[in-house]
Amino acid sequence: MFITFEGIEGSGKSTALTLLSQELSRRGYDLVLTREPGGCGLGRAIRPILLDARTRGLHSRAELYLFLADRAQHVGEIVRPALEAGQIVLCDRYTDSTLAYQGYGRGLDPEKLRHINRMATGGLQPDLTLLLDLPVSLGLERAGLRNQREGTVLSEGRFDAESLDFHERVRQGYLQLAAEEPKRFAIIDATQPPEDVELQCLSAVEDFLARNGCILEP
Amino acid sequence: MFITFEGIEGSGKSTALTLLSQELSRRGYDLVLTREPGGCGLGRAIRPILLDARTRGLHSRAELYLFLADRAQHVGEIVRPALEAGQIVLCDRYTDSTLAYQGYGRGLDPEKLRHINRMATGGLQPDLTLLLDLPVSLGLERAGLRNQREGTVLSEGRFDAESLDFHERVRQGYLQLAAEEPKRFAIIDATQPPEDVELQCLSAVEDFLARNGCILEP
Repeated sequence: MFITFEGIEGSGKSTALTLLSQELSRRGYDLVLTREPGGCGLGRAIRPILLDARTRGLHSRAELYLFLADRAQHVGEIVRPALEAGQIVLCDRYTDSTLAYQGYGRGLDPEKLRHINRMATGGLQPDLTLLLDLPVSLGLERAGLRNQREGTVLSEGRFDAESLDFHERVRQGYLQLAAEEPKRFAIIDATQPPEDVELQCLSAVEDFLARNGCILEP
Repeated sequence: MFITFEGIEGSGKSTALTLLSQELSRRGYDLVLTREPGGCGLGRAIRPILLDARTRGLHSRAELYLFLADRAQHVGEIVRPALEAGQIVLCDRYTDSTLAYQGYGRGLDPEKLRHINRMATGGLQPDLTLLLDLPVSLGLERAGLRNQREGTVLSEGRFDAESLDFHERVRQGYLQLAAEEPKRFAIIDATQPPEDVELQCLSAVEDFLARNGCILEP
């Protein structure tokens, strides 16, 4: 089972992923926690270029190909082997981020992005995508507090620095993607406290399992 | 005018580019010398990942996207502005390297590579491509001597370490590309001494100019 976490900056994906993974581990599931960019060695080399607010003048296509390089390597090195070994993969950002950010956000052609996503992943789709949704103003406020706490170098500073309009297009893009694939997406109300967000995520996993004739371990 | 230098490892592209640029400068031409990967700031960050022999297990698609990220940025930041300013751009490796190495060498689909090259470059093609051709055994011998001299970190060590078969496919791929576009390609006999290689390159530039109704400055 391949579960991805998506959402705008400050939506609390990493916290939700951590809390859900602790709960699933407690219930006996064998998990791999990973992320894009940066889930493999190559990604760790690329991540600072992509996310550091000091990276200036990166062309949108160059940015796209860096994300895809990380994705191709990450899927081949981490995600596929884990799924083949029967593990549950929880991944912070995946192909929908490309559609939301480079497509809806930067205006690259969504159909070309879908095509190139398929090339990079060999067609590997998530089984379930948890979309942590919240108003852009609240997300950026949270992201700002996080950046102050952690420093911007390894944070998502370069994207945080984009305009409000950009983030609004990304949020609406995500909601559009969720509307197109209601079975794969679960929309999580990310304005709620972390424990409540975790319960919503767990409930989405339970629903997914139930639709596939399985029950969540107690 | 956009001139690219192509060829297998050890074919002497960099030396030929340097000597030709000195001769063209002497004749009063305004030049920009650059290369892929590594002709722009992004490329300099990526180049060690791509070429360092210590990079292990890089998937062929991840490698491809790293080259394309560098190319998209390089074309936007360096090549197009120079051409628009009326300069002659001499570039060590470009789109044909992708077709020869990732296509003929690694077996990725050439048509998809052409498509993705066009996406990355916005369709910018070289006016003239100088293919420095020589037997693989001689090229690798030269590359080995260069690596001993310079250390492998910034050399092309990761590609040098590929099999003889790989390099033979790359060489034959280049010759095939040249056969398909005889007007754009000039095949240079790279077994000759550097001064002779330089004269062949200069003569190819002269021929190209003559076909376009211009004469080479004396």
